[in-house]
Amino acid sequence: MTYSPPERDIRFLLHEVFRLPEEWQAIPALSDFTGDVVDAVIQEGGRVAAEVLSPLNRIADTEGCSWKNGVVTTPKGFREGFAAFVEGGWLGLSGNPAFDGQGMPKTLGCLVEEMFWAANPSLYLYGTLSVGSALCIDSHGTAEQKLMYLPRLYSGEWTGTMCLTESHAGTDLGIIRTRAEPRADGTYGITGTKIFITSGEHDLAGNIIHLCLARLPDSPAGTKGISLFIVPKFMHDASGKLGARNTAFSGSIEHKMGIHGSATNVMNFDNATGYLIGAANAGLACMFTMMNYERLSVGLQGLGAGEAAWQFASAYAKDRLQGRATTGPQRPDAPADPLLVHPDVRRMLLTIRAFTEAGRAFAVLVGRELDRAKHGEDKQAQVFSELLTPIAKAFLTDRGFDSAVLAQQTYGGHGYIAEWGVEQLVRDVRIAQIYEGTNGIQAMDFIGRKVLRDGGATLEAFVAQMRQDDIHPCYEAACVEAEARLFRVTQGLVIRSRDDVNLPGAVATDYLELAALTFYARLWARMAKVAEGTDLAEQKAATAAFFFARLLPKTYALERFIEATSEVVMGVGTDQL
Amino acid sequence: MTYSPPERDIRFLLHEVFRLPEEWQAIPALSDFTGDVVDAVIQEGGRVAAEVLSPLNRIADTEGCSWKNGVVTTPKGFREGFAAFVEGGWLGLSGNPAFDGQGMPKTLGCLVEEMFWAANPSLYLYGTLSVGSALCIDSHGTAEQKLMYLPRLYSGEWTGTMCLTESHAGTDLGIIRTRAEPRADGTYGITGTKIFITSGEHDLAGNIIHLCLARLPDSPAGTKGISLFIVPKFMHDASGKLGARNTAFSGSIEHKMGIHGSATNVMNFDNATGYLIGAANAGLACMFTMMNYERLSVGLQGLGAGEAAWQFASAYAKDRLQGRATTGPQRPDAPADPLLVHPDVRRMLLTIRAFTEAGRAFAVLVGRELDRAKHGEDKQAQVFSELLTPIAKAFLTDRGFDSAVLAQQTYGGHGYIAEWGVEQLVRDVRIAQIYEGTNGIQAMDFIGRKVLRDGGATLEAFVAQMRQDDIHPCYEAACVEAEARLFRVTQGLVIRSRDDVNLPGAVATDYLELAALTFYARLWARMAKVAEGTDLAEQKAATAAFFFARLLPKTYALERFIEATSEVVMGVGTDQL
Repeated sequence: MTYSPPERDIRFLLHEVFRLPEEWQAIPALSDFTGDVVDAVIQEGGRVAAEVLSPLNRIADTEGCSWKNGVVTTPKGFREGFAAFVEGGWLGLSGNPAFDGQGMPKTLGCLVEEMFWAANPSLYLYGTLSVGSALCIDSHGTAEQKLMYLPRLYSGEWTGTMCLTESHAGTDLGIIRTRAEPRADGTYGITGTKIFITSGEHDLAGNIIHLCLARLPDSPAGTKGISLFIVPKFMHDASGKLGARNTAFSGSIEHKMGIHGSATNVMNFDNATGYLIGAANAGLACMFTMMNYERLSVGLQGLGAGEAAWQFASAYAKDRLQGRATTGPQRPDAPADPLLVHPDVRRMLLTIRAFTEAGRAFAVLVGRELDRAKHGEDKQAQVFSELLTPIAKAFLTDRGFDSAVLAQQTYGGHGYIAEWGVEQLVRDVRIAQIYEGTNGIQAMDFIGRKVLRDGGATLEAFVAQMRQDDIHPCYEAACVEAEARLFRVTQGLVIRSRDDVNLPGAVATDYLELAALTFYARLWARMAKVAEGTDLAEQKAATAAFFFARLLPKTYALERFIEATSEVVMGVGTDQL
Repeated sequence: MTYSPPERDIRFLLHEVFRLPEEWQAIPALSDFTGDVVDAVIQEGGRVAAEVLSPLNRIADTEGCSWKNGVVTTPKGFREGFAAFVEGGWLGLSGNPAFDGQGMPKTLGCLVEEMFWAANPSLYLYGTLSVGSALCIDSHGTAEQKLMYLPRLYSGEWTGTMCLTESHAGTDLGIIRTRAEPRADGTYGITGTKIFITSGEHDLAGNIIHLCLARLPDSPAGTKGISLFIVPKFMHDASGKLGARNTAFSGSIEHKMGIHGSATNVMNFDNATGYLIGAANAGLACMFTMMNYERLSVGLQGLGAGEAAWQFASAYAKDRLQGRATTGPQRPDAPADPLLVHPDVRRMLLTIRAFTEAGRAFAVLVGRELDRAKHGEDKQAQVFSELLTPIAKAFLTDRGFDSAVLAQQTYGGHGYIAEWGVEQLVRDVRIAQIYEGTNGIQAMDFIGRKVLRDGGATLEAFVAQMRQDDIHPCYEAACVEAEARLFRVTQGLVIRSRDDVNLPGAVATDYLELAALTFYARLWARMAKVAEGTDLAEQKAATAAFFFARLLPKTYALERFIEATSEVVMGVGTDQL
């Protein structure tokens, strides 16, 4: 499948639905990003995705990475592919202009990221971790650290990693064992083994900057005793000139279900030289600057997979001739009609489209709040972005995976055969539901920290903000009903969870889905309204109609699921499981 | 993961829930199958699954099959593994005793099959196609054909295949092009290329018997012009002694997402000698004898994957220490509590268990109807078995896949790494939703041929039969409510589909799920009742409670989805998709 950038849909969201270039005119730091500039960025990002990244996606899977004596070789063509990020400055898109970043709106960055993820997730992983580590250094580093690392991470001359996980410590970072010994010269000796380190070692850049969590001597137990360190692969002088090899080595790479082109390393730190970033024992908070960025980015991976799934399924359903329409042959000249005549095939296609396009609108919504939080006076925007991030991570990746599986199903037996590429899509996107905090963790974060902690006030405020936009009147009642259900369920949970502390965890996954579907409803009603009279009118009206009839009513079931007490899951004896 | 046969649960269903050995005492052909005999079969089948097949499952994936000059080599150990089928007579379990089959109840065969599928789906595929092709020959072959092939297929000395698909013809068999030219000696020259031929070539048996669909000259177009032929790999004399190689060769094998140990062949028939089986132009009906068997068997593959998923997830959730219980440390001695303390992890585990155990009960239900149809006077049983088969194929495999994905999710990042084995489970079971008729095809068969054709009468009669069994009183109301919903939806569809011919196809998938959940409700209510006072009481009560609270309410949403007209999917212009 040749990836085709969804430029029209992206422009529809930017210019017509959310009118962001207009909004940016009023923000000094973003006022350069006029409609024309924005369109040019999307067009060029789409070109890179389609012409450079996408053609390397199959070989990423078939060849994968190899490891020999600590040296990792990426698939053929990856060096040239990564060079496109460097040449185009794509990794510095939303970077700090004071350090050679381009300072573009986050929203725009999200839409470019979606295309990169859709075209080649293995290759873009080398990029996203650089962008995220730069963000962390920009937020918590010293002036010298910023000056040293940001320009090089933005340019792609060097890349970044996040070293959190240890074999016994994944979600539970409080129990990590990697140690940091202070040295007389102010540096630290980092010792320990980290696993699942994406881009921990590779052949695409001159240096690798590890952001590594470790414990200082006598630090408090648990998450309050973790500090963050910058550990470069190669030591460097003050001018950035590379020196001796630091003692941070890749011990091996993992054999994985998918994203074979991405090197997932076991990293051995053997008294490696590290530099503290941020305050001692405040490392987890620093790391979460990066983690929150990566969570949104991973959500965009799910969105990109959904778009790829759409393109796979739509193309095959038009091309493959099989069976006849119930109402009689549509292609009497051919031995059979295209798959597209079958209602169940259309159900699969429209499910993919409805979730993908609403997912893209949702991503824009998150990006907008991040831009407003960064550049505006609006304190609410930061809170909204935190409310929406776990949904972006979990719901976009869950629907991206489902979409890939549906696309594969459309292909019948051919969907199971490697050469068609759609089974790779399923394998590649599966990781997005797991890494950067499993989707179960996202659901618990959402229901606990983001909703119940303030009694649902932020959630209600966000819905109130969404309600300021015009929507298609024929969906007004359905949106209001869904929102009333969400509020009713939320208030019920506020009360019930006082006496049932396990309740939020027990219903977290269903609750996140309930909220996401409710938000998507208003987004579809909005898109259907805005598309009226445009070239997208028929498509948006049809997809909105499908969403309200065939997807939104899941909320009826979700409300019922959430009515159960936690006893239903917690009451079972451990010996019975 | 070491597979552990679910013997206790199987005995619970056979002896306690359905009391089948009792029922079989009244059937002369089955009266040998007393409780003791049945238990011995399950125990020995379980031993083969756990000790012989399961240890070969990882190598099936990592080594896969290889093809060289038309010769296929199966993974190391597969010859010895297949020999266990031969030595134990497992492939003739439900075979015709007149030809060395063991004549066991189909129900018992299903439960053994589940264990083989769970332990090693790649390897068991070589078995299931032999069993199915034997069934087809037993139903449609001449006395001579039966005498020649059945004993050898039952013993595993030879294996069988089903050659249906061509590159342009999968679901739509009416457009196949393979030709059969009558010869003067009464044989036929078969010419054409078939794809996706499981076990079409391999090194496990002395001969391979292809059941191949082809067109006779001047046959009517479409499905009414298809005939079925027996095409042996090696010619043989009347004593079964092998002679010349027939001109049916493997052109290549496919690279697939999973089931790597199963050889999926492109088969080239080049004027290969074939023998007509059944009447000319009645081949599709003959093939469907095998197809219906395989559909149930594939459902059991989904069930087996669900059981394996349960064992994977349960073991890991107990072993892996990560985080602390909301209510305070449960293992204060350890650095963290087991995953099992987390409500969302329990939700995943209980979802797997609730669907797997009800799925097993459902499989027994289908087997019972098949046994009653074969051995009893009850004409209704055949109709019921036809009603239930598409659900067994689609719902058991959909839930098997979901269960594998949930188990993988339980593992976090380790679930994505090959060495843990759970990602293989996901890849292996994915095919079950596709082959032997995609699950969309099953849903259309169910709603169209099995339900709406007689206005829902068979469906209602089946529910009435289920209602004869005692169930736990606390679930009586929920069962009746779900059944009332199913009947209401069905009668609505009967009326609405008169004017909306695309409606059944448009809602088929949701309707099948609605029916399956409704049947599962009564099965859980039954199991909860029967388990009272036994060692399984707590486990069954807890899982039933979970099912009714957290899974059955999906029916509220499904009813809403089905209220939509087909316009929602069919009204979208083809140029808009």
